[in-house]
Amino acid sequence: MDKKVDFITLATPDLDAARAFYRDGLGWQPLVDVPGEILFFQVGHGLVLGLFEARAFDADLDGGVSQLPDPEPTRVAGLTLSQNAGSPAEVDAIAERMLEAGGILRKRPQAAAFGGYHGHVADPNGVVWEIAYNPGWSVEADGTVRLEAVDPV
Amino acid sequence: MDKKVDFITLATPDLDAARAFYRDGLGWQPLVDVPGEILFFQVGHGLVLGLFEARAFDADLDGGVSQLPDPEPTRVAGLTLSQNAGSPAEVDAIAERMLEAGGILRKRPQAAAFGGYHGHVADPNGVVWEIAYNPGWSVEADGTVRLEAVDPV
Repeated sequence: MDKKVDFITLATPDLDAARAFYRDGLGWQPLVDVPGEILFFQVGHGLVLGLFEARAFDADLDGGVSQLPDPEPTRVAGLTLSQNAGSPAEVDAIAERMLEAGGILRKRPQAAAFGGYHGHVADPNGVVWEIAYNPGWSVEADGTVRLEAVDPV
Repeated sequence: MDKKVDFITLATPDLDAARAFYRDGLGWQPLVDVPGEILFFQVGHGLVLGLFEARAFDADLDGGVSQLPDPEPTRVAGLTLSQNAGSPAEVDAIAERMLEAGGILRKRPQAAAFGGYHGHVADPNGVVWEIAYNPGWSVEADGTVRLEAVDPV
């Protein structure tokens, strides 16, 4: 099995709020937008982020097995999506941009235990983004990632 | 703010089980392995999957704010990681490989609502992988993703 992720799909209770945040707030152009169902964005080389209406997400995975009447739709937990920035100042600027677009502050940008600088902002559905400056991280032209230890804070 | 994900980080209650599944079972070579703390794999062009010990994940995000005594560590929910395969037969083979490595069957490979074929297998921490054949999906040499509608099932 290849070491490869092509899609990141997230259960999204409020798809309209997600669209308002990513498309209208951050100016992200969707790859595909099917109102009430799913919203896709390309977020990397060959990589797609799918925001899938939460009850449809549950039904698709469940395969009609569950007999629970009207359960609460699933919310995302235990996940952080990270975007790396070129400097602490850029981390601050991106976090500020996300807050202006309707994001929710989870961790004010600050020195990070891994030796860089980071802050966390959640989208309107509670999906946590980390904006990070990591001086030990780099990506080569062919996509190979280098991660080197830096002095921790 | 760029449309870009560099890291996917998952709260991982049992890091040893994760290592046994991905490294020993599937043969994935880690990018970085810090026992008891974090396990990184490169899973795409410039893309890293981080399996972060769940209490450390919670503490990092929490910033020391929580006063709860010994809460249950966070588990991943509402997320599917998808890997696309070249044919239904390849979907079957990859799903079988994951089950042999210790994965848990969530949805037996079958025709998918989007017009292709897919199955779902969870890792030992409950992280759901979808293995999919999608005839409407392709990636160009520069990493641009094409998604075209196919006749739904």
